[in-house]
Amino acid sequence: MSLVRVHNFSVSLDGFGTGEGQTMEAPFGHAGSRLHGWFFQTRTFRAMQGEPGGSTGIDDLFARDWDRGIGAEIMGRGKFGPYRGPWTDHEWNGWWGEDPPFHTPVLVLTHHVRPAVEMQGGTTFHFVDAAPEDALALARQMCPGQDIRIGGGVATVREFLAADLIDYLHIVVVPILLDRGEKLWKGQEALEDRFEIESVSSPSGVTHVTFTRRRASES
Amino acid sequence: MSLVRVHNFSVSLDGFGTGEGQTMEAPFGHAGSRLHGWFFQTRTFRAMQGEPGGSTGIDDLFARDWDRGIGAEIMGRGKFGPYRGPWTDHEWNGWWGEDPPFHTPVLVLTHHVRPAVEMQGGTTFHFVDAAPEDALALARQMCPGQDIRIGGGVATVREFLAADLIDYLHIVVVPILLDRGEKLWKGQEALEDRFEIESVSSPSGVTHVTFTRRRASES
Repeated sequence: MSLVRVHNFSVSLDGFGTGEGQTMEAPFGHAGSRLHGWFFQTRTFRAMQGEPGGSTGIDDLFARDWDRGIGAEIMGRGKFGPYRGPWTDHEWNGWWGEDPPFHTPVLVLTHHVRPAVEMQGGTTFHFVDAAPEDALALARQMCPGQDIRIGGGVATVREFLAADLIDYLHIVVVPILLDRGEKLWKGQEALEDRFEIESVSSPSGVTHVTFTRRRASES
Repeated sequence: MSLVRVHNFSVSLDGFGTGEGQTMEAPFGHAGSRLHGWFFQTRTFRAMQGEPGGSTGIDDLFARDWDRGIGAEIMGRGKFGPYRGPWTDHEWNGWWGEDPPFHTPVLVLTHHVRPAVEMQGGTTFHFVDAAPEDALALARQMCPGQDIRIGGGVATVREFLAADLIDYLHIVVVPILLDRGEKLWKGQEALEDRFEIESVSSPSGVTHVTFTRRRASES
């Protein structure tokens, strides 16, 4: 069965998945790089950067699980870039340079559709104006039998949760307090009724929390 | 040195220390008993109820640390009872019955002072109208050299944090989403700059997060 998964999604202890004030220089606003320090230390991230070394413990175990069996990603426009409204810069193709780390089709949700862009390494950005259910159906057509990753940002994960489309959600609680930004948990009362939840703390200081959808027979 | 400590303070994954709608029957509002299930399972809690058994692992290790070296507690009026405004029922002396578990002086912060009430077992409730600093000075006079516990509720802990009066804060993150109630973390940006933070997950599903104030030489 094809699953819908979220991986390596960092939130502050007070529940913000990103800070306030996104710009080209600060994709996560005033959070800077503080939400993702645990990830930057992993061997998985360093390998993406073409660098050796990095941690190989529980943080990396989670980090490297992100692309196992994934056939496509769906992301919100805010993850793709800092611009809103009609596209003015068609040369800008995401924060990741010419060879993005996805290596699959990537559906970018936007009300302003534009032609698909094929990058190096197997990543193709498709710009679609679709509700979560329809975007998911489209993504599944692109990779029959494989899993779909919801890549973020905060609002996109929240929308897919609200539509009850997510099977597996991996959250990383980072011990910082941002107090401003976008809240992941808004409007998600009693989410625990739909998911098995496990927590494991890492020596790095973060806590990995996994939500696995209960099967109908369990709930 | 006398420390100011918070123990066994449960918050939901979305940061609520209590639910919405406190009543006599529901001290934690719509949260019911869900924030404290981990505590009710411990040997420490069961002993308070005069019952045998209970868990003796990491949850109980934290639970039983709550009164070690404590000479007085400071609590907000909302922890004492569900009433607000002038006192109308002088027979009501807290949720805990005739022999409350504190066994020390307890300062109840209220704008409506009333005479102290001596309970069984060494607990005396003092009703004081004082700012955090002044309440703390008063509590310290009552138990020279001993530590002071800030007992809650949410607003009281937040006020003492904002006044930078807390030395040790033990939070228990419970994997439930309440979406409504009182937020512990509001207005606490960058609290991590003032505290060493450690997290440890328990087999019960909760994660214990401890904040230990950095000494001046460390920060």
